[in-house]
Amino acid sequence: MVLPASFPFASAESPLERPMFIRQLDTPALLIDLDIMERNLRRAAEYARAHDLRLRPHTKTHKIPALARMQLDLGAAGITVAKVGEAEVMLAADPPDLLVAYPIIGRSKLERLVAVARRTRVTVMLDSLHVARQLSDAAREGHVEFGVLAEIDVGLGRTGVTPGDELVELIRGLLRLPYLSYEGIGFYPGHIKSLDNDGLEQIAELDRLLEATLERLRREGLSPRIVSGGSTPTLYHSHRIRGLTEIRPGTYIFNDRNTWLAGACKLEDCAASILVTVVSTARPGQVIVDGGSKTFSSDRLTPTPEVSFGYVVEAPGAVFTRMNEEHGFLDVRRAGVELAVGDRLRIIPNHICTAMNLHERVYGVRGDRVEVVWEVAGRGKLQ
Amino acid sequence: MVLPASFPFASAESPLERPMFIRQLDTPALLIDLDIMERNLRRAAEYARAHDLRLRPHTKTHKIPALARMQLDLGAAGITVAKVGEAEVMLAADPPDLLVAYPIIGRSKLERLVAVARRTRVTVMLDSLHVARQLSDAAREGHVEFGVLAEIDVGLGRTGVTPGDELVELIRGLLRLPYLSYEGIGFYPGHIKSLDNDGLEQIAELDRLLEATLERLRREGLSPRIVSGGSTPTLYHSHRIRGLTEIRPGTYIFNDRNTWLAGACKLEDCAASILVTVVSTARPGQVIVDGGSKTFSSDRLTPTPEVSFGYVVEAPGAVFTRMNEEHGFLDVRRAGVELAVGDRLRIIPNHICTAMNLHERVYGVRGDRVEVVWEVAGRGKLQ
Repeated sequence: MVLPASFPFASAESPLERPMFIRQLDTPALLIDLDIMERNLRRAAEYARAHDLRLRPHTKTHKIPALARMQLDLGAAGITVAKVGEAEVMLAADPPDLLVAYPIIGRSKLERLVAVARRTRVTVMLDSLHVARQLSDAAREGHVEFGVLAEIDVGLGRTGVTPGDELVELIRGLLRLPYLSYEGIGFYPGHIKSLDNDGLEQIAELDRLLEATLERLRREGLSPRIVSGGSTPTLYHSHRIRGLTEIRPGTYIFNDRNTWLAGACKLEDCAASILVTVVSTARPGQVIVDGGSKTFSSDRLTPTPEVSFGYVVEAPGAVFTRMNEEHGFLDVRRAGVELAVGDRLRIIPNHICTAMNLHERVYGVRGDRVEVVWEVAGRGKLQ
Repeated sequence: MVLPASFPFASAESPLERPMFIRQLDTPALLIDLDIMERNLRRAAEYARAHDLRLRPHTKTHKIPALARMQLDLGAAGITVAKVGEAEVMLAADPPDLLVAYPIIGRSKLERLVAVARRTRVTVMLDSLHVARQLSDAAREGHVEFGVLAEIDVGLGRTGVTPGDELVELIRGLLRLPYLSYEGIGFYPGHIKSLDNDGLEQIAELDRLLEATLERLRREGLSPRIVSGGSTPTLYHSHRIRGLTEIRPGTYIFNDRNTWLAGACKLEDCAASILVTVVSTARPGQVIVDGGSKTFSSDRLTPTPEVSFGYVVEAPGAVFTRMNEEHGFLDVRRAGVELAVGDRLRIIPNHICTAMNLHERVYGVRGDRVEVVWEVAGRGKLQ
């Protein structure tokens, strides 16, 4: 299959009636460099195809149906979401398959999930029979079927049962529940935060853990059809994890400062930045910009202990040391440039997923030009 | 003036057609205990009146026009916002006076601010003549007048000129600009994070700094009509800061874990909590709840170096140690209660302002009953 050379970015949802330029945008504004984003999307799609991996990207990063549609057009087998509200929003992308990588609990959410399952195939990743039983009941009442992935913990210590007896017990339980279809196992290797030697060793450990787990399931007659894992930091090492059949990276579409400092992309692969304006230079050696924790989120760096909140594109020597809700503090003593009130800067955030969630709309740009405005339709969908 | 005994909470904007109970709410959901909120509002209003201080509450905390209206009905002289978008939203509260405690820059924002100034009196706090000149130009073109407060830095090291020569120069510049009315000076004592002995000494220092500043301005013939300061931690110590005429607390309406640990309120004064559900107990000694950084924000504690993200009302011994976007990690080894998948907990967030900004709507409750649903109309107004 040949990948399309370009995408229909100026979609019907967000036509720009006349040319618009970055200089016309008010700040703070979240910019997406479309050339970089397209390259990121294409590279992951080609990698997945070359290694015969299903790509089911996590849309929590972008939260925009038009971008999910692009991922699907490039060959993604389906998409991933974390919340029922995100699933509802993402139906606009017409996905053939939708994974909810989160244990969904409670009658009203399950009723909404049934409604989603009437429009596309829905799989839920879960780690308890409590959740599975509710899901089975809802499927029966709603006359649908849900796929299920049994979640294992591979080192993050978050959700997921321990591979071994607990997993076997969970899968046996799933197989007994009607209206659920056991599809396989899933995990999230979020403990691998950096691709240094330790990180590569963690990937090798994951490979060994998975091999032992799959061998055990084979012996029990419970072999999974799908083995779903992967994150953006581990994305291009997925082929080293034998047995893996599916990957669910999210951040790779834009990348961010965490991804870059983890060694999982280069600075020039970071597609998203936040345009801010200098609003105060009252204190020598410091400038204040008009974006703080309500614009960037206060997520810290994950791969390093450094406390700083972004990379300033036009002044790489500036250090984003602190933030209040609407104020970003830049230490510019080593910035190498003079900054005045009114100057505009682009800052690459530490964590693009939480930053996207704070913006009502974002701007797709090519060069100086704003090519498309996207509503972040999936933002704030907490339920 | 006698304060009204109760408020018309079930306002026209959010009628509840039939009784609703907390147990019917999906999670995560942000709950406001109305009894506590009313007590907080009344106490601050009474304090301000007793000490002859104008109360101009910062609405960035709640972002809800109906709550701004309550603050005004209780005697607030006006309200405060940080962004033009917040000012636009807050016009629905019909404030007689609106302070934008942020330097507003750029033509389109200033045009929007002019439109706001046609509907109510607008004052802007600023620290540079660059900002003041743009404001003066916009006022002239728009046929309005803006009040201005000259901002001084009293220790936070954020915005604000140094009190002394810089302040005198700024005020002289303001007085030369047409369509601006110099009203006084303002500051934000955000460096006072705790009411321990150090904090009380910082308040005493602030008093001395202000006395010297006002004496200097008197000598220069630049005496301010308004001296605007205050924060929630310092709220009930405002009378110790001589010369202060106006206070702008925001968080006091709800309080939060930061306010409590700062010694500025008691636990029982915390009106806001986030209702979450346990979604996984796969790991011994730990439970995962369905709220993380997209529900609570990842703001850390300000008054202490401890890294934890909230106080669990039903399990005070639980420690909210980590979060991902949709996952909260509770260490329950010392929780003293057994928690199972499906259990619901209320968690008081570290910082309610950033948490409110993440919720599309919040629920006003009294006992088990949901009395009102408010849309957080001012959330996400970044510009």
